[in-house]
Amino acid sequence: MSSDNRLIYLPLGGAGEIGMNAYVYGYGPAGKERLILVDIGVTFPNMDTTPGVDLIFADIAWLEERRDRLEAIFITHAHEDHIGALGHLWSRLQAPVYARPFTGNHAARKMEEQGQDPEAVNIVDIWPQQINAGPFKVAFLPVSHSIPESSAMVIDSPAGRVVHTGDFKLDVTPILGDPFDRNLWAKVAEPGVKVLTCDSTNVFSPNPSRSEATVGPAIRQLVERAEGMFVATTFASNIARVKTLAEAGRDAGRSVCLLGRAMRRMIEAGVETGILTDFPKTVSPEEAADIPRNHLMLIVTGSQGERRAASGQLSRGRYMGLEMKEGDTFLFSSKTIPGNERDVLRVVNAYSEMGVDVVDDAADLYHVSGHANRPDLSQVHQLVAPKTVVPMHGEHRHLREHVKLARENGYYAVLAPNGTMLDLTPDIPRVADMIETGRTYLDGSVQIGALDGVVRDRIRMALNGHVIVTLIIDEEDEPLGEPWVELMGLPEKGNSKAPLAEVLEADLDQFLGRAEPKTMRNDDKIEEAMRRIVRQVSQNEIGKKPEVTVVISRLSA
Amino acid sequence: MSSDNRLIYLPLGGAGEIGMNAYVYGYGPAGKERLILVDIGVTFPNMDTTPGVDLIFADIAWLEERRDRLEAIFITHAHEDHIGALGHLWSRLQAPVYARPFTGNHAARKMEEQGQDPEAVNIVDIWPQQINAGPFKVAFLPVSHSIPESSAMVIDSPAGRVVHTGDFKLDVTPILGDPFDRNLWAKVAEPGVKVLTCDSTNVFSPNPSRSEATVGPAIRQLVERAEGMFVATTFASNIARVKTLAEAGRDAGRSVCLLGRAMRRMIEAGVETGILTDFPKTVSPEEAADIPRNHLMLIVTGSQGERRAASGQLSRGRYMGLEMKEGDTFLFSSKTIPGNERDVLRVVNAYSEMGVDVVDDAADLYHVSGHANRPDLSQVHQLVAPKTVVPMHGEHRHLREHVKLARENGYYAVLAPNGTMLDLTPDIPRVADMIETGRTYLDGSVQIGALDGVVRDRIRMALNGHVIVTLIIDEEDEPLGEPWVELMGLPEKGNSKAPLAEVLEADLDQFLGRAEPKTMRNDDKIEEAMRRIVRQVSQNEIGKKPEVTVVISRLSA
Repeated sequence: MSSDNRLIYLPLGGAGEIGMNAYVYGYGPAGKERLILVDIGVTFPNMDTTPGVDLIFADIAWLEERRDRLEAIFITHAHEDHIGALGHLWSRLQAPVYARPFTGNHAARKMEEQGQDPEAVNIVDIWPQQINAGPFKVAFLPVSHSIPESSAMVIDSPAGRVVHTGDFKLDVTPILGDPFDRNLWAKVAEPGVKVLTCDSTNVFSPNPSRSEATVGPAIRQLVERAEGMFVATTFASNIARVKTLAEAGRDAGRSVCLLGRAMRRMIEAGVETGILTDFPKTVSPEEAADIPRNHLMLIVTGSQGERRAASGQLSRGRYMGLEMKEGDTFLFSSKTIPGNERDVLRVVNAYSEMGVDVVDDAADLYHVSGHANRPDLSQVHQLVAPKTVVPMHGEHRHLREHVKLARENGYYAVLAPNGTMLDLTPDIPRVADMIETGRTYLDGSVQIGALDGVVRDRIRMALNGHVIVTLIIDEEDEPLGEPWVELMGLPEKGNSKAPLAEVLEADLDQFLGRAEPKTMRNDDKIEEAMRRIVRQVSQNEIGKKPEVTVVISRLSA
Repeated sequence: MSSDNRLIYLPLGGAGEIGMNAYVYGYGPAGKERLILVDIGVTFPNMDTTPGVDLIFADIAWLEERRDRLEAIFITHAHEDHIGALGHLWSRLQAPVYARPFTGNHAARKMEEQGQDPEAVNIVDIWPQQINAGPFKVAFLPVSHSIPESSAMVIDSPAGRVVHTGDFKLDVTPILGDPFDRNLWAKVAEPGVKVLTCDSTNVFSPNPSRSEATVGPAIRQLVERAEGMFVATTFASNIARVKTLAEAGRDAGRSVCLLGRAMRRMIEAGVETGILTDFPKTVSPEEAADIPRNHLMLIVTGSQGERRAASGQLSRGRYMGLEMKEGDTFLFSSKTIPGNERDVLRVVNAYSEMGVDVVDDAADLYHVSGHANRPDLSQVHQLVAPKTVVPMHGEHRHLREHVKLARENGYYAVLAPNGTMLDLTPDIPRVADMIETGRTYLDGSVQIGALDGVVRDRIRMALNGHVIVTLIIDEEDEPLGEPWVELMGLPEKGNSKAPLAEVLEADLDQFLGRAEPKTMRNDDKIEEAMRRIVRQVSQNEIGKKPEVTVVISRLSA
């Protein structure tokens, strides 16, 4: 090992938010490291900060500029915040993709959907099989989570071993997929681990996480007691949960119907990849419509109250020939992600108006998290016993708390938010560089930068409304007719009770009547003055200052 | 009592949301009832559904049309969702206002702020003092809540007694203000109560509510252990909590400084009305800046992460000469109202980046709710023993659950959402009418209807962006020059990599070149065609269909 070589870590996303995971590792001479990428996920937009945006990716500009040095992309599991950007960003990176079969099934589909070659996705086996990626040897270490085939990455470099947990929990009875195997992890840790890059999502949850197997009995009891139709929602990717729900339905003598594209697709992927072998027989929505409600169970998409998901559609009336009625039960076998409360409550209240009994997880009976809680994180620290813990997958507050926890447990720990390039070579890692990171928005079919101003303008129009002023100026630099005002997103009348557009037009006309010839020859000056007048008059009339677009047309002189 | 007379109840707001309380009672011949209004509150806008809006009121059109029959307005307590619309709507109702001293202090200020006569506010004493309001005799019955001087209304009519709880909890040690007095309530209930109109906020909380007095010891311990500056936030109106915090600070040897207008104003109102007699001495922000951090405690506004409140300002840097540093502690002695999670977490993460330790109420130690939980509601049902329970102050799901609870407790109960006029005269109340209700937005200085389309247009611009097309048509109905396109909130370039505005202009120009003379004489047709082209081309270029404003200027023929 040349003394010039170094092992680096650089989170482009995921170390500053829960979502949008994208972690770079590199090995080689400074500035010439060969690179690998672990995960390439999305995060979701919201009306507060990203109206109209479809998806949010980590800004991969740094990696794209160095793509000749990128050896491989590894996907830990098939959740959108780890795999969702693959199809959209792959053409900018063009490195081979590695994943286990179920995850690879999703990866290939995501590539195809965006017109990329699904053959770039390579299906691999688990540890001890290793993938050679330049100076790295990488293996997939099975771990339990809320989706099948989740894996930690065992990343071996000449500078030592890194264990990158991905998302995980310590579940020895996960219903489906790999149980957490303490012996396997101990074997991986045996030669000594340099760095543990570790999930931080649940660092604030004080009690040990509960197993997926614990929710079955409570769900079973609830379904047995239900009288009308029973409808349940959960994350479609939590196939174990979907199976638990379906079995509870079947065992209570109900036919099971899956509603929502994601729900059906996940079960298909499970069957195609051999993970799901004994899922109860399902009926189509058409068949379901003919089954008595008390013999029917729907498992539907939309645990976050999404308008267009099946739960949202059913909350507004008939969907796929089915509808909710008084006496039915609706179960949220899920938790509400912070920020989605209003959407979920909208659905709950709509069901309440229909007379449907809604059951959520307030009593901690019908859902368990897929992430390791605080005591579980401590267990993993001790099991892996790394030289250094680097918390990832969390907001700043999670990372900071996880650093504290690791230090309490006697480990060296570093807080490395997005853009922090760590040199992991020395025993005490050091910050090698700070990289400019950020977010890329998928807006319709276009990728735009978060700082391009597009979304800022949308937010301003939403908050302030939009006034459009058009003015024609003739060959002698005189206004031709009066300026014309159109309003969008503004009240028609203000305090003077006269139409706002007319008040604005009168004041703008007055300005033009008094304007110096010098001003009238200068579009910028006219525009600036008119904008100022519109904002000032609007402030007086309606108490707010709108966005203003001034369009000046000059008749060719 | 004439057999023609009836007692009616009509919620205009508050029975379908938590907030925006406005309840009408009436007595007299059908359609000629003399009316009273209990509370006139606001609810708060959000970016999802009401961008740019300042406040939301219940639509009082029904009551305004009948204001000659309105005898009085009663305010149960000074929370914004009960009093906030008074100044804005009073001129449309113009009835005398009654409130207890602390509430009246706020009411008078709200009247003044909106240019109304504060003399319309009458300060009254508690039960058994009664206010004559037409056929009604109304008394204020003290009850504990999270603001001083909360009251239930004891509304006596010839048809019987109604007890309208307002917001309440059963707290016998509320630190400040009236403890819940079971004997007093029993006395009020003694003659028999026809209807209990009852707060539903916490019907889903299964355990008895905890007293305000229970948070003191935990807060005290936390403050004693803190090393740097200690900063706490809570609802400013919870004067008892502010006092508990301030005393914990003082007793730990810290000088106490109140930051934020609402915080200072609430304490002032408490002192002015004699409620608050022994609040610890405070220092000004200027004085605070000179005090060592470990001897300083700030009590600040912004428990919901509001950008402009003191907590938000401090999360972005220096505020009033003070700033947070590594080693400081920030306590949320409050809960996050659903929908505000993102704002609160933004503040928490900003503090985390500063190295500040943030403590919230996850462990149920530092905050208690001001509302009666499920077992407390049952206690009140039994204590008042009404003929009928009418749940109010809640979303539909709360009202529905509260109806179930009252029935379980053996009481007749009616679900009456906003707009449901109940005839309470018979032993079994019946729905007398359904009134069109809704929401009024305060937008800047203008009141607009929720369905006026103004906010809808803002949301559309925020989601889709805005394209402005201007076109000049000459005296011969020919385009003068080319159409001009401006974009707002849209990416500059689309899939073809050419500027979107230019692509649109070229396609619109092509359309004009081919347009029939008949079309060119008809502005509506041109506009429609151009809008269609803009939306279609945009869909191809950028994958979304923007809002379009077409401005056609015709040179006078």
